[in-house]
Amino acid sequence: MPKTAEECKARMEEVNLAIKKGAKTFLKKEYTYLGIFAVVFATIIYFAVDRVEGAEFPFTTVAFLVGASTSMLAGFLGMTIATITNVKTTYLCNGNRAEGFDHNKALDAGFTVAFQGGQVLGFCLVGLALILLEVLILSYKPSIITPEVIASNNWQVVSTEVRRLFEFVSGYGLGGSTVALFGRVGGGIYTKAADVGADLAGKVGEKLEEDSPKNPGTIADNVGDNVGDIAGMGADLFGSLAESTCAALVVSTSSQVLLSTPDAVYFPLLVTSAGIVASVLTVPFAYMFKHDVETKLKVQLIVSTLLMSALLIPVVLIVLPKTNLNFTFAEVPYPTTQWEAYGCILLGLWSGLFIGLITEYYTSKSYEPTKRLARACLYDASTNIINGLALGYMSNVIPIFCLAFTVLLSFSWAAMYGVALAAIGMLGCLPIALTIDGYGPISDNAGGIAEMSNLKKDVRKRTDELDAAGNTTAAIGKGFAIGSACLVALALFGAFITRTAESLSNPSVYQVNILEPFTFAGLLVGAMLPYWFSAMTMSAVGDAAQDMITEINRQVPHIKNNEAGYPDHEKCIGISTQASLQHMIAPGALVIISPLLGGWLFGYQATSGILAGCIVSGIQIAFSASNSGGAWDNAKKYVEAGQLEREDKNGTRTIVKKNDPEHAAAVVGDTVGDPLKDTSGPSINILIKLSAITSLVFGGFIATKGGLITRYL
Amino acid sequence: MPKTAEECKARMEEVNLAIKKGAKTFLKKEYTYLGIFAVVFATIIYFAVDRVEGAEFPFTTVAFLVGASTSMLAGFLGMTIATITNVKTTYLCNGNRAEGFDHNKALDAGFTVAFQGGQVLGFCLVGLALILLEVLILSYKPSIITPEVIASNNWQVVSTEVRRLFEFVSGYGLGGSTVALFGRVGGGIYTKAADVGADLAGKVGEKLEEDSPKNPGTIADNVGDNVGDIAGMGADLFGSLAESTCAALVVSTSSQVLLSTPDAVYFPLLVTSAGIVASVLTVPFAYMFKHDVETKLKVQLIVSTLLMSALLIPVVLIVLPKTNLNFTFAEVPYPTTQWEAYGCILLGLWSGLFIGLITEYYTSKSYEPTKRLARACLYDASTNIINGLALGYMSNVIPIFCLAFTVLLSFSWAAMYGVALAAIGMLGCLPIALTIDGYGPISDNAGGIAEMSNLKKDVRKRTDELDAAGNTTAAIGKGFAIGSACLVALALFGAFITRTAESLSNPSVYQVNILEPFTFAGLLVGAMLPYWFSAMTMSAVGDAAQDMITEINRQVPHIKNNEAGYPDHEKCIGISTQASLQHMIAPGALVIISPLLGGWLFGYQATSGILAGCIVSGIQIAFSASNSGGAWDNAKKYVEAGQLEREDKNGTRTIVKKNDPEHAAAVVGDTVGDPLKDTSGPSINILIKLSAITSLVFGGFIATKGGLITRYL
Repeated sequence: MPKTAEECKARMEEVNLAIKKGAKTFLKKEYTYLGIFAVVFATIIYFAVDRVEGAEFPFTTVAFLVGASTSMLAGFLGMTIATITNVKTTYLCNGNRAEGFDHNKALDAGFTVAFQGGQVLGFCLVGLALILLEVLILSYKPSIITPEVIASNNWQVVSTEVRRLFEFVSGYGLGGSTVALFGRVGGGIYTKAADVGADLAGKVGEKLEEDSPKNPGTIADNVGDNVGDIAGMGADLFGSLAESTCAALVVSTSSQVLLSTPDAVYFPLLVTSAGIVASVLTVPFAYMFKHDVETKLKVQLIVSTLLMSALLIPVVLIVLPKTNLNFTFAEVPYPTTQWEAYGCILLGLWSGLFIGLITEYYTSKSYEPTKRLARACLYDASTNIINGLALGYMSNVIPIFCLAFTVLLSFSWAAMYGVALAAIGMLGCLPIALTIDGYGPISDNAGGIAEMSNLKKDVRKRTDELDAAGNTTAAIGKGFAIGSACLVALALFGAFITRTAESLSNPSVYQVNILEPFTFAGLLVGAMLPYWFSAMTMSAVGDAAQDMITEINRQVPHIKNNEAGYPDHEKCIGISTQASLQHMIAPGALVIISPLLGGWLFGYQATSGILAGCIVSGIQIAFSASNSGGAWDNAKKYVEAGQLEREDKNGTRTIVKKNDPEHAAAVVGDTVGDPLKDTSGPSINILIKLSAITSLVFGGFIATKGGLITRYL
Repeated sequence: MPKTAEECKARMEEVNLAIKKGAKTFLKKEYTYLGIFAVVFATIIYFAVDRVEGAEFPFTTVAFLVGASTSMLAGFLGMTIATITNVKTTYLCNGNRAEGFDHNKALDAGFTVAFQGGQVLGFCLVGLALILLEVLILSYKPSIITPEVIASNNWQVVSTEVRRLFEFVSGYGLGGSTVALFGRVGGGIYTKAADVGADLAGKVGEKLEEDSPKNPGTIADNVGDNVGDIAGMGADLFGSLAESTCAALVVSTSSQVLLSTPDAVYFPLLVTSAGIVASVLTVPFAYMFKHDVETKLKVQLIVSTLLMSALLIPVVLIVLPKTNLNFTFAEVPYPTTQWEAYGCILLGLWSGLFIGLITEYYTSKSYEPTKRLARACLYDASTNIINGLALGYMSNVIPIFCLAFTVLLSFSWAAMYGVALAAIGMLGCLPIALTIDGYGPISDNAGGIAEMSNLKKDVRKRTDELDAAGNTTAAIGKGFAIGSACLVALALFGAFITRTAESLSNPSVYQVNILEPFTFAGLLVGAMLPYWFSAMTMSAVGDAAQDMITEINRQVPHIKNNEAGYPDHEKCIGISTQASLQHMIAPGALVIISPLLGGWLFGYQATSGILAGCIVSGIQIAFSASNSGGAWDNAKKYVEAGQLEREDKNGTRTIVKKNDPEHAAAVVGDTVGDPLKDTSGPSINILIKLSAITSLVFGGFIATKGGLITRYL
């Protein structure tokens, strides 16, 4: 154990350097793959979109590349910040032992740094997304909305050209989401292969502590937190924001009133800007409620939602015209007052928070569902798994009703524009949500560094306290990430149908009839895609974890003999890197290719079916997988916190301890939940959105060149 | 251990009596509940259907009651036969030890009796379903197709009246399926609570052999096989047959050619009859391929499919007119030649077999997926679970493509009539499928009786051989039960839309537009229903199993002391009975109420969405749950058969034995799979079909009285 403050610091730096290096190495490799992929995909976009559309300039292709690079930049920035602040957090939680030590002071100091790290991530990312989108729109505008178009004074012509502008810009969302998918899948496989492997071989097999420096898998596990939870999550929500804004812009062009009111068309961007302001105003509240970290974080979410609701009122009053907006969708008019538009955003904003709180109810160990789950561990690992799966399934019910209600109301107020606004509303307080999402892995890493640096036990206790609060609020974030994905995808679906109908000048396209055989077949296949996708990602984690176990077991005798070069962390990092890069390609390709291939071969009806099937089936798996996983994780923590009691035949109660059979049963659940909640579950968000935006961007191609086979039937 | 042949026989009789008694007691209680429910539901049907439609007689209500009673009768018959033949099978597998003993002779004798037991079940059930349907049609016909209708010589009038006749008769399918749902859910909870509880407490906890007479849960486990796998499965497939026939009859009325050709309208019934003939001709093949039980059973499936394909040719030639059938659906004409109709049936028939074989590939221990799964047990229970879930998800891919293809082709040939014919085709060789489905639990029970009667080990070996073959082919049966449920439900959905459109005289009803907000919201909610339903059934099994474990653990010390009255099997039977009756109500009600409530409050668009969502999401869970469960079961058997080898650090290979940690990992998977494959998975079949037929039967009500809330929006 390091004695002096200098020794401590040096050891922390050393551990952190290993994490930093691992993360950078992985990101470099991943981005090389992604770069090649982006160039290839950009070429396809150029020929199938820009050329087919007869664009004056490769608008979509460039937008795609900008989106992809921004998303990569965001991931890189997030990770850099995280790997700087994690060690700082450990350092501050360690405290200055020389000048008389205070637990609460150290805890608060640690919280502040970790929270600030999250803030940098959150505000940078949202700001970046917004600014580059704005830049793209402004630089494309003059070439498309030419003076002749404006001079034509023909509303139809203007509307068509503005729609074209926004359709081109949608390439930005596609770029962001493509990178996000690979980031999420690759990062998810990386982190969970390391986590599962290190846990099973080290903790279960050799009874090592979590993050023990003797376990060769721990550095990989900590790298994974940054790669998956920071870079992956950041890119995911960046994609959601870009896509929902693009969707709103495309569908807004059906309103003549909106187009002719100055700046009103940029209303969606202004909503997000208002969210940034609301988030800035919320931050100071984090330093109230001293020493209770969980309350601090929850207050952040609730205050930002309240502030956002209020701030939107002046935005609506200033930007939106007082007259009805008169949207048209599928040739049906929707009058839409400015307050109905406000209502759509509010619905999204609050139902997002509500879905998050329901998610927390099902996954936090403070509530009955997870407590019940922990009690199932008293019988066997299998009863834990059965009840955990059932819990995940059950947790779908209220969020789905919530989403159905949001879709119903927002659609009936403002058609697809309403749905898009609801999605933007749900992402309204994104800077705060991202702050909290970033905060979690930073404190988790801080704990890892404390353990690996052999710091005193009380340091780990503090970082655990920070981490536990982050876990709870991260569950809330996951819930609304899935909910917003559903709304975003639906809005994009609406934009896709609009693009198709306009390309073909055929209003019957708006009738996406389930009883049309190609649509129904598409619906079936689309509903299957999330399963196929999950099967690939989960078995990738399973296989890679097995390789990791084999490697760790190989190292164990060498480590026990204290041989030089052992534990060999590099080797384990290599296994995770290799597995994730190798296995992210197939699921990624599946998502991008399916709607395109379906449309190309069987026409836009098939694409519509695939999209609808994918959305409605995907969010169910996403919710249930995330929540089962979260509940298992927390049930294990419940047991480890000594909160589970068993009763013997005589009615005597004893507390279940670590490494008892009941705890082992809880660990099985936690391990099963790892890939569900951190690999396949959250990737399905992106699957849903990405397939929808791919269809939108390639909408013109699918409409005009699609149906290769059906034409000959 | 009993010594003389008389002692053996007496002990077998005693055990069997306990099983018989348990099964009868449960069925009696279940049927009491069901009887009350049927009367209540019949009253609702009377007021919401027969009265609303202004029927001259409570046609639908009576048809419902006939269907419900027939289904109950079928379940009762099946169980009676099974509990007679199970002990006979044990007896014959025991062999006549006095006159020189022959393993193969005893095995063949055992097989013959078990297989004959299955046959009685299969042929009785299909015959019963067909005859009563025919009786209903013939007795309703004169009151609806009155001489005046015929004399009108107006094709519109005749078509409407014939459609009304078949819509009334559809109550028969509803009755059959309602009973089937409660049978499946109740039986599934019963059998798995007993199985999981007895296994965890007895086998894992106390290291008892499977079916040990010392385990107080074994009788309940054996009763459960009869209750769930015989009565439940029988009622399920009875329902499918009745429903697919009703769907075909309703949608066939759009063809004037079909209605004016004598008997052509009964073509669907004749297809099923041809299936009976094909099955009768197939039976003798079971006595070829001496001593290889699995081949015998597989040959049954393939030969019956081949014979059916051939036998249908004369049926088509004789019954269907040579001219085009000219169906209309959604105002689009479908010419449909007689060979296209034949093609639809063939598609269903062969894709059913193909789906079954794919299911076998994923779940049998002879193929790579399950072998790989078994190897995952070398690491931990959690890797087994992760890989098993992934396997189940993956097993969806090919069957879904298969179904999508079947829907596409059959729809493009003959619209909804084509889909209904494909469903009937898939169920074409139902008598053989049911024979095999019945054969399995009979041999399983025979093994249980052998164990509990303390017969020699070789008897159990023979019954295990019989049982193993039954398990493999049962997997095939499960696959096509799910596939046919999808097609049946789609055809019923088509019939529902037809009924609604005709009731409202509004052809726009045929456009079930996904982008209509009520439809999309319905789609979301519908896709969630199978999750809600599974959550309820799985946690019912989980909870009941925990009660069972507590009870068995309570009895263990008494059993060890050889106290009188222990093991107390009655008590365990009581727990299973109580749990299943108590927990079958809520999921059952959910299925029946959802589409009705959706339609009543939000109109037929909501019902359509719910149905479509339920179908496309439900079959995915059904396939993956059944296949994950099946694969875990067989991976455990693979380990128990001594086929799994581990390799230590020096490369030495040793065989994994029973009660090794790797075996324990396999047992966890098996236990988790139990409720998935035998409770929630197969019940989802019925969920899909039942919600569709409920909508069809209440179609007039939903069309005319529905949309209570939307009218005021």
